[in-house]
Amino acid sequence: MNSVRTALTPKRRQKVATRPDTREALLTAASDLMVEKDSIEFSLSEVGARSGMSAALVQYHFGSKEGLMLALIERGVTRATSQLGQLAARPIPATEKLRLHLNGLVNAYLRMPWTNRLLHVLMQGDDEERARRVSELYISPVAEFYRTLLTQGVEEGSFRPIEPMFFYFLVIGACEHLAARRSVMRFAFDINGVTDELRRQYVAFVYDVLMSGIAAHPPG
Amino acid sequence: MNSVRTALTPKRRQKVATRPDTREALLTAASDLMVEKDSIEFSLSEVGARSGMSAALVQYHFGSKEGLMLALIERGVTRATSQLGQLAARPIPATEKLRLHLNGLVNAYLRMPWTNRLLHVLMQGDDEERARRVSELYISPVAEFYRTLLTQGVEEGSFRPIEPMFFYFLVIGACEHLAARRSVMRFAFDINGVTDELRRQYVAFVYDVLMSGIAAHPPG
Repeated sequence: MNSVRTALTPKRRQKVATRPDTREALLTAASDLMVEKDSIEFSLSEVGARSGMSAALVQYHFGSKEGLMLALIERGVTRATSQLGQLAARPIPATEKLRLHLNGLVNAYLRMPWTNRLLHVLMQGDDEERARRVSELYISPVAEFYRTLLTQGVEEGSFRPIEPMFFYFLVIGACEHLAARRSVMRFAFDINGVTDELRRQYVAFVYDVLMSGIAAHPPG
Repeated sequence: MNSVRTALTPKRRQKVATRPDTREALLTAASDLMVEKDSIEFSLSEVGARSGMSAALVQYHFGSKEGLMLALIERGVTRATSQLGQLAARPIPATEKLRLHLNGLVNAYLRMPWTNRLLHVLMQGDDEERARRVSELYISPVAEFYRTLLTQGVEEGSFRPIEPMFFYFLVIGACEHLAARRSVMRFAFDINGVTDELRRQYVAFVYDVLMSGIAAHPPG
């Protein structure tokens, strides 16, 4: 890695660093690669090859695969959690926030089905500090959103009291699984890819189940 | 790999092959390793080291990491799907089958949190034939169980008509996520490991949500 950095002279480095398009192009190439392979197993060379650049340039921009993974999460999830903050602050009922959130969540996972797998990898191993920071930046905001949402719903009389952690695992698990298990959908259900219509139907289904279950006679 | 097989003379091979305990011990070591690391990234050497045997012996028994993964799935999931078949045939209401199934599913994922990740890896890449076979053996039986269960529930007047694929993704996603995201539980919710009590509460929560949602006034 040092040799790569040394090979880039200060002047060259500056030139590269001021070209945000290169960084963006590399991130997009890495994301496309993971979506295409339905896997987070990729090499910096593959990212380089796909973007028509060298593996050395990828390494220059991100240092390592881990650095690239962090940058992908930062680009993708920071935006999503900031939208979550805006949604939390809107003066609308909790039920409506939930519906909008489910729609945004399934959309986000379909665009970035690798999100939770990368977060999982970044929260493993011996680097506790990194795990804690990744959790604070990208997981806790979601948990916090759920706490606030569930409290609002109970206050408005629309939700019964619910344990936020259980809600987290059910909602995230359900919304991620549709997007991250393309092979299951293909081989066990004979469906190739999620159309807009299918996505809308699934969001409506998860919302309906959350709000009234699968009982034959829902409330209301 | 050839050298390993060649090194084992027919006599030696026979002796090893007749010792099912060795195979079992290696499978258990691999499973423990994945649970401990909260990851499916492991090497045959690590499995050998953990079980006090050589990597060569691991390779002799399973051929490759892929072979070991298939054997783990075969051992763990075959039993689970056969229990599913027995559950489907029992003369009890669909709601009761659902409750028992959720309990078994969460238990299975807690014992083998790596299950879906291994299945995912085995259903990827260029080997379409393998993907199709893995799906037929380990995913389709679950999908089929859900189809039958949902039909029974509608006939008994307890379920409204539900799309089985949507039900699959919601239930599997929700039940797996609790077991397979130990780091999220630890760092974002400050909970170390799933106790029996927590497991029971989560199963009851998922069942309640499925049956009556989170609405303040569930049916009945």
